[in-house]
Amino acid sequence: MHMPANIANNYDWLKGFTLDFSMSSGLSQGAAAPATVRRLSQMAGMYTDSGAEERAVRDGGDPVVYEFYELGAPESPGGLAFGTSITYPGKVGAEYFMTKGHFHTILETAEVYYTLSGEGRMLTESPEGDAVMHVLAPGTAVYVPERYAHRSINTGGTPLVTFYVFRADAGHDYGTIESKGFRKLVLEGADGLPHLVDNPKWKSVIPRQQ
Amino acid sequence: MHMPANIANNYDWLKGFTLDFSMSSGLSQGAAAPATVRRLSQMAGMYTDSGAEERAVRDGGDPVVYEFYELGAPESPGGLAFGTSITYPGKVGAEYFMTKGHFHTILETAEVYYTLSGEGRMLTESPEGDAVMHVLAPGTAVYVPERYAHRSINTGGTPLVTFYVFRADAGHDYGTIESKGFRKLVLEGADGLPHLVDNPKWKSVIPRQQ
Repeated sequence: MHMPANIANNYDWLKGFTLDFSMSSGLSQGAAAPATVRRLSQMAGMYTDSGAEERAVRDGGDPVVYEFYELGAPESPGGLAFGTSITYPGKVGAEYFMTKGHFHTILETAEVYYTLSGEGRMLTESPEGDAVMHVLAPGTAVYVPERYAHRSINTGGTPLVTFYVFRADAGHDYGTIESKGFRKLVLEGADGLPHLVDNPKWKSVIPRQQ
Repeated sequence: MHMPANIANNYDWLKGFTLDFSMSSGLSQGAAAPATVRRLSQMAGMYTDSGAEERAVRDGGDPVVYEFYELGAPESPGGLAFGTSITYPGKVGAEYFMTKGHFHTILETAEVYYTLSGEGRMLTESPEGDAVMHVLAPGTAVYVPERYAHRSINTGGTPLVTFYVFRADAGHDYGTIESKGFRKLVLEGADGLPHLVDNPKWKSVIPRQQ
């Protein structure tokens, strides 16, 4: 990685650069800053079993649920943001560890994920309530279309590692999901397998404007 | 992969879809159409050693130099095109097998590559002549910035496989490179290693308008 004159967050977005991301752990040795870490306590109220959530935070060491790289790409419509997302294995009650999930602030922008390691699901949902769940395994690319919120869910026993790319000016709207939730959940059933079910906590509030 | 109402080229660009790409070969079992194949005869005049190029076409079986998936993403500025690019190992004289390379028709659009297998170089070049060469190995992401032409070069002994993403309306301008060439070449030196050198065939013609 070379670092001449025009740099932002140590990456040369004008002349180009390379950056390593481990295909097994998802972690980068060369990144200018560590990955952003999300512990369970930072997802208060997002899991359906509130008691299990509180116990895992209080008695379970407040585990790291996921982390992801934010490289700080300049927010140009011609640029792209990219990095890895790593969701760790675990459950809160019957609900698998997952990311918060988000819409893009510019709703009409897509995102592409390529799965490097692990097993899981990508839950996607439009503002009108169309929910589509995609199955992730190593080598699986997912096209998350314009307008769909998206959340990574680890249904396996090892880290779920994806490489993601989206338009650099897309922006993240976390608020809508934080206030309304997804309409669907992925829970482990009595058969030990993941099942897509309705989210009893989902609220049909008006999405927060940003 | 589900295929409801709104599909283009068998992929559901409006509701999303998954598609497999092998992390070793780059090939997809589920793709609706085979990869686009480029044989050496389709790159006439692009290698510096014309005699070696002609012999490889005439006597060498006109080898497949590279192939890549074109999924036919609708050309929306909010959409993304993606797939794998596979450059095979080989040389024409001292010059490594490589892709034709291209600018984007919308010059101010970037591209991101993630290297899945193999070893090589990504040669990038702006219209003003700034040439930057990036080293590719498994796990290496490359940010090809807005305005830079880009060419994959296989300097190893196995297929060079990358996963790429770019804005769906970016378009491909192959003509400028076909008429002018890149200013730089990557040749194997007497030491057996790749070296970046000036391209004696490079022409400073006015880029073809598209």
